[in-house]
Order: sequence, then C-alpha cells, then structure tokens
Amino acid sequence: MSDSVELESFDNLIAASLSGSKLEEFNRIYYGRKDHHFLNIKKSNIEFATRYNFEIAAYDFPARREETRSPHIVKIGIIQHSIAVSTDKPITEQRQGIFNKIRNIIATAADEGVNIVCLQEAWSMPFAFCTREKQPWCEFAESAIDGPSNQFLRELAAKYNMVIISPILERDECHGDTIWNTAVVIDEFGKIIGKHRKNHIPRVGDFNESTYYFEGNTGHPVFETKFGKIAINICYGRHHPLNWLMFGINGAEIVFNPSATVAGLSEHLWAVESRNAAIANSYFTCAINRVGTEKFPNEFTSGDGKPAHKDFGHFYGSSYVTAPDGCRTPGLSRNKDGLLIAQIDLNQCRQIKDKWGFTMTQRLDLYADSLRKAVQPDYECQLIKKT
Amino acid sequence: MSDSVELESFDNLIAASLSGSKLEEFNRIYYGRKDHHFLNIKKSNIEFATRYNFEIAAYDFPARREETRSPHIVKIGIIQHSIAVSTDKPITEQRQGIFNKIRNIIATAADEGVNIVCLQEAWSMPFAFCTREKQPWCEFAESAIDGPSNQFLRELAAKYNMVIISPILERDECHGDTIWNTAVVIDEFGKIIGKHRKNHIPRVGDFNESTYYFEGNTGHPVFETKFGKIAINICYGRHHPLNWLMFGINGAEIVFNPSATVAGLSEHLWAVESRNAAIANSYFTCAINRVGTEKFPNEFTSGDGKPAHKDFGHFYGSSYVTAPDGCRTPGLSRNKDGLLIAQIDLNQCRQIKDKWGFTMTQRLDLYADSLRKAVQPDYECQLIKKT
Repeated sequence: MSDSVELESFDNLIAASLSGSKLEEFNRIYYGRKDHHFLNIKKSNIEFATRYNFEIAAYDFPARREETRSPHIVKIGIIQHSIAVSTDKPITEQRQGIFNKIRNIIATAADEGVNIVCLQEAWSMPFAFCTREKQPWCEFAESAIDGPSNQFLRELAAKYNMVIISPILERDECHGDTIWNTAVVIDEFGKIIGKHRKNHIPRVGDFNESTYYFEGNTGHPVFETKFGKIAINICYGRHHPLNWLMFGINGAEIVFNPSATVAGLSEHLWAVESRNAAIANSYFTCAINRVGTEKFPNEFTSGDGKPAHKDFGHFYGSSYVTAPDGCRTPGLSRNKDGLLIAQIDLNQCRQIKDKWGFTMTQRLDLYADSLRKAVQPDYECQLIKKT
Repeated sequence: MSDSVELESFDNLIAASLSGSKLEEFNRIYYGRKDHHFLNIKKSNIEFATRYNFEIAAYDFPARREETRSPHIVKIGIIQHSIAVSTDKPITEQRQGIFNKIRNIIATAADEGVNIVCLQEAWSMPFAFCTREKQPWCEFAESAIDGPSNQFLRELAAKYNMVIISPILERDECHGDTIWNTAVVIDEFGKIIGKHRKNHIPRVGDFNESTYYFEGNTGHPVFETKFGKIAINICYGRHHPLNWLMFGINGAEIVFNPSATVAGLSEHLWAVESRNAAIANSYFTCAINRVGTEKFPNEFTSGDGKPAHKDFGHFYGSSYVTAPDGCRTPGLSRNKDGLLIAQIDLNQCRQIKDKWGFTMTQRLDLYADSLRKAVQPDYECQLIKKT
C-alpha cells in the first residue's frame, strides 16, 4: 500500500534542511518552541517498532507547578495506520489484518505507559465511501458494544488498564438498522463509557459519506475517564469551529480528531484546523489521519469530470498533537503506520485560560443571541451599504 | 526602531534553505500551492519602495471562470509599519511622522491599482496601552469622522478612488467622551461608510487594553463597498471563532484583521488563526501586524514578576493574506514597513462554499440552541461519567 514517490515527512524535510539558529527560529515560530521536548522511548520498543514497520515518537508538554493543585500528568497515544490486505479479500480477513498490526502498536503504547489511546476514523476498514457501493462495505458496520472491533479493543483496554477510543462504522440494530460514523469510548476495565456520533458529514470530492450515514444525534458529549475529560470531533467536524467550541464548553481537556483525508484535498489545511481549535478552546487536540493509498475492486468516478479510477489518493498521515498554548509536536510520517505519544499535564488547560482569557472574553451571550436571530428564515444580514 | 538581531523573515528563511522539489513540497503543504503566483510590480514602484525603505510584494489568487458570473477581481493592499519618531516627542509630531510614511505607501498602492487598503490596528500612534498611563496616550484618541487620521486618509481615498480601512483609537464625544478601538471604513469618495468597534478586548500580558476601552457595541457589520463586501475583525478578536463566524454569516467576502502583537506572546499562533477563519468561513482574510520595538518614556511592569522596563517586545509584522481555499501568501518581513498586494477574485468565495459545503453542513440551528442553553447560569455540561 505504500507510495514510494510520496514525501516521507514534512517535518523531517525541515529538520534535515535547517540547522543551528535557523532551525531554532523555524521551530519557535512554526511549532511554538525551539526544541521538541522529546521523551525517551525504551530501546526494546524502538526495535519492536522497526521490526513491525511502524514509527514511534514521544514528546513532553509540561505545565507550570501550582501550589494548590498537583500535576495531572497523562500519557496519550495516537495511532495512524494503513489497511493490511487488499480490499477484494473477505471482510473478516481485511479486519483481522488490521487487528494484527494494531495489537502490536497498542502493546507498545502500553509498555510506554500510555493511558489513553485513540485510533483513526473507521479504523478497522478501508475508507470505501468513495465507491458509493453499499455492498460489501456496509457489512463492516458493527455494534458499538460487542461488534468485532470493540470486542477486540475491550480486551486490550482491560489487559493494559487503558482508555481506548474506537472510531467505527456503527450499526444501530435498535433503531432501524441505521448506520452511523461513531466513536466509542472504552474504559480501563474494558467497559463502554459511551459513544459519540459524527456531527458534520461531508459531501466533498470522493467523501460521499452522506450516502451511508446521517448527521450525529449525540450532541457534544465529554467523557469523564479515569485519566481526564475527553471528547471526539470526528474528521470533517474539524472544519466547524462551533463543533470544537461545544466540546470546550462541556469541559473537554483533550479532544481527539480521528480522520481520513487525502493529500489533494486537504493537506494544506491539516496543520491549521485542529491546532486552531486547541488555541481557541484552551484544550489539547490530537489530529489523526490514516496512511497509504487504498485501491478498490471496481472503478468509480469522483464528480470532477475525470475518468473513472480505483483509488482516491494518498492518505497522508501526519498525525500530531497540539497543546492549549498552541505548541505542537512534529507530525508522524506521511506514509507509514505510527504511534505518537504525548505526555501532557492537564493543568495547562486552566493555566492557559487564565493567561489568555478566551473563555472570559468570548461573550457567549452575544453570540447565543446573534445565532438565534441568524437561523430565522427572515434574518437580515447586518449589511452597511454606502449612501 | 529596528532590531538587527531579529530574524528578517520566516518565509525567506525557508525559500533560502530549500530548493527544487523540496521547496515545492514545502510550499504545497505549507502555503497550499507550489508556487506563489507572484504579480508583477512596476519597476518605478520597486525603486520607490527601496528608497523609502519599505517592502513591496504582490500575489494573485485567481478563481475558476464561470458561465453566468463575470470574474469579480479586486486588488487589496495591506500595510504594516513601525512608528516614525520616538514616543517622547509631541503627539502631533509622532502622528505626522507616521502620516509621512503612510502617504508614500498608499501612493504606491494606488499606482499598482489597489482598490482597498487596510492599515494596522491603532495605526497612527504607538501601542502605548502597555504603560497603563492615561496621559498623554489618550490624547491620541480622535473622532471617527474628522479626526486628524481620518481627515488625512479621506483625502487619499478620494484622490486615489480607493476604499481605506482606518483602525484608530476613537473618541466618541456624543457618548460621554468614551474611547473605543474602532475601524472606520472610508469609501472611494472619501466619505465614511461606517465603523466597527473591537468586539473582544484582551487582558493578557502587556495588553492592558480593557483599562482604556470597552467591548464593542457595533455587532458584526459587513460594509458593502464599491469593490466588495468587507468586514474588520480587530486584533484579539482573531482568537474568537464566533467573531469570525458572524462576519461570514453577514456576508463578508474579505475580513481584515488589523493587529498589534509581539513575538514572545503570539508568533506561533499568527499563521494559524486568521487562516483558519478563511477556511471555516469561505472568505478571504488579511492578517496585519505592526513592526518594530516601541520604547516608552517611563518604565512599566508586565505582571510577570520581572523587573520594570520600557518596551514590551518586538512587533513581528509577518502580515499575510489567505484565500477561501486555505492557500496563503508568504508573510511580509518581521521588521520592516511593507505593502502586500493581493489580486483576488471574489467569485472564489462561493466556489469554495459549493466545493466544501461548510455553510450547508454547519447546523447553525443546533448551535443556536446549544449556546442558548450554555449561557444559562444553571447550565449543566453534557458530561458522561463512567459508571
């Protein structure tokens, strides 16, 4: 599935081309800090990652010590991966191939002391919505409670005392067999804390997702886990600042953005949107994108007048973490499975709220009133015309 | 006022360090397009800019040709500048020094065919709010109609058939002599179309602005000018996605963000926030920051436990323009006066709305309802606790 012509990493391109004070200035302005605060990774895990062909990187985001609160240190792990076998293989074989590589990566995360893991959007299947075919792809949809993907992850969560966020294609058998794009939160005993359904569904390019599922009906839940208050903004929801905002209002300290997006469409937006959300809402964000090019058995068109084809471009990975102060990690590679670990102190959230004051100055009452008016059919824009 | 130790330009650092396919890949991923679409600048204007020590750069943002709408091409110019004489000089002398350099830059913009010019926040004065002194700085406040700054600009607007946005410190003599942070829109005949007052006021670091003026009371006006529908999000308002959103709802095609911000505080956020707003709202944004270090007569403290001092850091310029598709120009320099020209086709706004569908998928009714609830004193967060 790998694309040898693809650039391996935006971040490594810079690190290999600049040095000394130039690299420091680039890092200060681009990432927000001169050095990346690398965390040590066990030698055995580096070797393991090399053997199983995934990248591993770890960074530290400390906070100021406080007198009246202890540090609230959490290790989060985000995972990006390609599919494992070709898309014409039986569904169970495709899924099992992904399970096999995820098992290795989660074991590594656990050995590094990771507390919360989040996987990419629709992690246990190819991103087949580009085909507009209902079969066989709808067969990947599964119960949020005891479908194969969550059975697999619930065991690992309990085994490793870890919270795992599992973004899947959900089949809701209790409500007309409907399909949803859903993130399920599994606690450290392997129990389901709850789930959230993608709020904003794309109709752009090959992302024909509204053909398969509807806008989510779960509001903006924040899940209080053993390790912190977390929320999930699924993929296209990252383009909507109001979606990010409501997770912040509901108390999120970390918001994960499991995604699937391709280079031709969004790569220049990738470093902007989830980072902006971390800044605007004084919480940590984790942007996760799949990797590789996925080829499908039957050709399809993309609504752009071009000839039919069997893939829809390169998923460019580049997963990264941003802190409330706007500092961010380098991204994982553009074409390889990877585990990015961030050790974060959740105390930074409130410290940054106190420093920048965005929650104090955001005038929510003004906007509640403005939006109430703006959604009326007879709303008149506040337009000042020249006399 | 210049700081010889300061990096001259983030963008030039990259352009000088990378080449060939590496530079193209950097440009594609970072700026959104492989080449910058430079526009020609007249030789006479390049020479003039060299003589008067300001930078000049120009870029093109074309849109797709449509069958039923003509292109809507506009040339916008954004100006960044340092103060002209030291802050202990008489107020009229300080202001006149700035007028002299702005006259040159606007004349150049006019000669390049610019239709709309926007200046930086509080453009005709030093950014003295760090001092917390009321005198003499409040004397810079002036009438939005016929104060010296707007008298000066109204003449230039009429002379050059140009819309000019003038962000000033406003004195409202009709309402208790109150002071406001205000952007005034002057039409191409030199008449005032209207004004907008800064909606969000910072209380961060040396930005003690709430000591001087209050949150704006002008809503989110969009000004329909001869050249397009424009709005102004002043400085700190760029941290608030809802502020950007309301200008979009009211129909803005270009939103200017006249600012004053320093390197130690915000430089790693600068490339993120106004660019995110352009993406989320499918309009053009223009981020404008002053340049140089401003020293004040009396020492002041910064609320950070450090000793008193007479300046509050380096205004890093780096003004830039982003298109609705998320592509952006390189920034102007970090330490020099500058004029950045962008030739834009406003048709791109609707083309991008049709492509990405953010206005269709944003579910404003959901958020109007969510915010209405969230501002109630007894609001309970949507928090899912583990059982």
